[in-house]
Amino acid sequence: MAAKLKSSKRTFDLQEFLERSTASVNAALDRFLPTEKTKPATIHKAMRYSLFAGGKRMRPALVLASAQACGGRDADALPMACAVECIHTYSLVHDDLPAMDNDDLRRGQPTAHKKYDEATAILAGDGLLTFAFDILARDDTHPDPAVRGELILALARGAGLGGMVGGQMLDLAAEGRFDNGKRQSLDEQGVATLQAMKTGALLRFGSFAGGILARADAGKRAALDRYGDIVGKAFQIADDLLDVEGDTATLGKAAGKDAEAGKATLVAVLGIDKAKARLKSLVDEAEAALKPFGAKAAVLAEAARFVAERKA
Amino acid sequence: MAAKLKSSKRTFDLQEFLERSTASVNAALDRFLPTEKTKPATIHKAMRYSLFAGGKRMRPALVLASAQACGGRDADALPMACAVECIHTYSLVHDDLPAMDNDDLRRGQPTAHKKYDEATAILAGDGLLTFAFDILARDDTHPDPAVRGELILALARGAGLGGMVGGQMLDLAAEGRFDNGKRQSLDEQGVATLQAMKTGALLRFGSFAGGILARADAGKRAALDRYGDIVGKAFQIADDLLDVEGDTATLGKAAGKDAEAGKATLVAVLGIDKAKARLKSLVDEAEAALKPFGAKAAVLAEAARFVAERKA
Repeated sequence: MAAKLKSSKRTFDLQEFLERSTASVNAALDRFLPTEKTKPATIHKAMRYSLFAGGKRMRPALVLASAQACGGRDADALPMACAVECIHTYSLVHDDLPAMDNDDLRRGQPTAHKKYDEATAILAGDGLLTFAFDILARDDTHPDPAVRGELILALARGAGLGGMVGGQMLDLAAEGRFDNGKRQSLDEQGVATLQAMKTGALLRFGSFAGGILARADAGKRAALDRYGDIVGKAFQIADDLLDVEGDTATLGKAAGKDAEAGKATLVAVLGIDKAKARLKSLVDEAEAALKPFGAKAAVLAEAARFVAERKA
Repeated sequence: MAAKLKSSKRTFDLQEFLERSTASVNAALDRFLPTEKTKPATIHKAMRYSLFAGGKRMRPALVLASAQACGGRDADALPMACAVECIHTYSLVHDDLPAMDNDDLRRGQPTAHKKYDEATAILAGDGLLTFAFDILARDDTHPDPAVRGELILALARGAGLGGMVGGQMLDLAAEGRFDNGKRQSLDEQGVATLQAMKTGALLRFGSFAGGILARADAGKRAALDRYGDIVGKAFQIADDLLDVEGDTATLGKAAGKDAEAGKATLVAVLGIDKAKARLKSLVDEAEAALKPFGAKAAVLAEAARFVAERKA
């Protein structure tokens, strides 16, 4: 998180916002999650191990920033921010499993199934996924049950078959994990669809959630949805560039792994230069999408830049 | 499902109810689930493969029967019935995985990871779990969003850490899967807790859900909760007895597997005769719990007997 922001348009310190939002999300997650002493202890330890492994809390930050853009308060958006992080963490735990991406390291630490074991990792993931909906269905998440219902439906869609889970399935197929190892070669559109589902859907949901929470009008919701779509794309291109150009120590995970695994990325399809140009124009598009919010969207605008320029 | 009912108190044909409810639940699941042609196709095929593998639809039947007892209509309870079956099926898919119970057969057919592969089975389970909440959050599941919220919260609790997921974790621990293979020897209370969480919680939820759907009063809800608790216990003892006394062909899975795995069961703790006596008295207790519903609870009463006396 040491990435320095260089934008001349910067009107405030995004780093400070991220530090503050990470601190409040971590504190809220700690309050929500059962303690490590809760029985059975091992699964609760494993859930907390993965949840507090130093994630960047990007999705929760988008929830808080989008709520802010719509005039909502951080405190009211915290349960939603925690729920989306539970979903994100479960997806990492399951994706790292030997039967999936078979990763030993995550953020420089042993992955859940390495630290514990496969059965615990599977169940800890299931537990986190289920717990996200537990958080959202509670009365104190929002006084209006219709708003809670809308959040739950949008999260289930973003995390589910038409979103994250479906995207991971497409990713494994592209890597040649099915059909007797035959890699599915994807064109630019195919890669874009895969990424929009696998990582885009949850970032898009995070950006949209603040609008649901604050009961924003249709115009603002459409703007947030467009912004979230753009940020999802930018996030993925930045991620792919980091895999090509970053080094393992800074990333906390093996660099060059995507290329090695024959992963479908836009960087592989477009080349590095075109990918960087695309990234730049996406940041501009994100800023344009935020017009209806005026100055209230300053955090969201900086967040798009941060996502594109991050170094880890 | 060939178990004959012998109760003299039988006032209707439970078998007929079960056949009808299974048919309508299957038709509703088919409507809810994305088709096999939905991309990515493999995960949708895998979800349907496991979902339509001939399950007994016990939990959906309890949802429909409890709604009926509270004066609700079957059609209004169908989304909830489908959601609980999605949760049940996902738990079977994940429990069967090599890292968990490592089962090759389920209902006489290859388990999901045998038919497809481990990655697909993990993701199909995640997809089904997420989809259950997708179904429940929809407007047409219940016109009152507060009722939908209550259903979601209760399902998340029954399926989560304090319920099914936590119970599976306890089960693996009891089998000596952690702590360097040291089996945790459980006393009667320990076994009861494990089973109440692992299988009881979802059956209990199914029995309770009809009360939420029909906005039953506190007295009726308490009665349904008590009934569900009893049915959960009866279900598990019957299951354990079948593992000891049943044969592999009728069960569609390996008999004697629990004993072999050193699984904690009440039959192992109490012995066969005492377990059978306990089962008998549970059926009477279930009937007593249903008093507030009068004749409307006829299906629920027969269901308790069916659960206890089933032969597969």
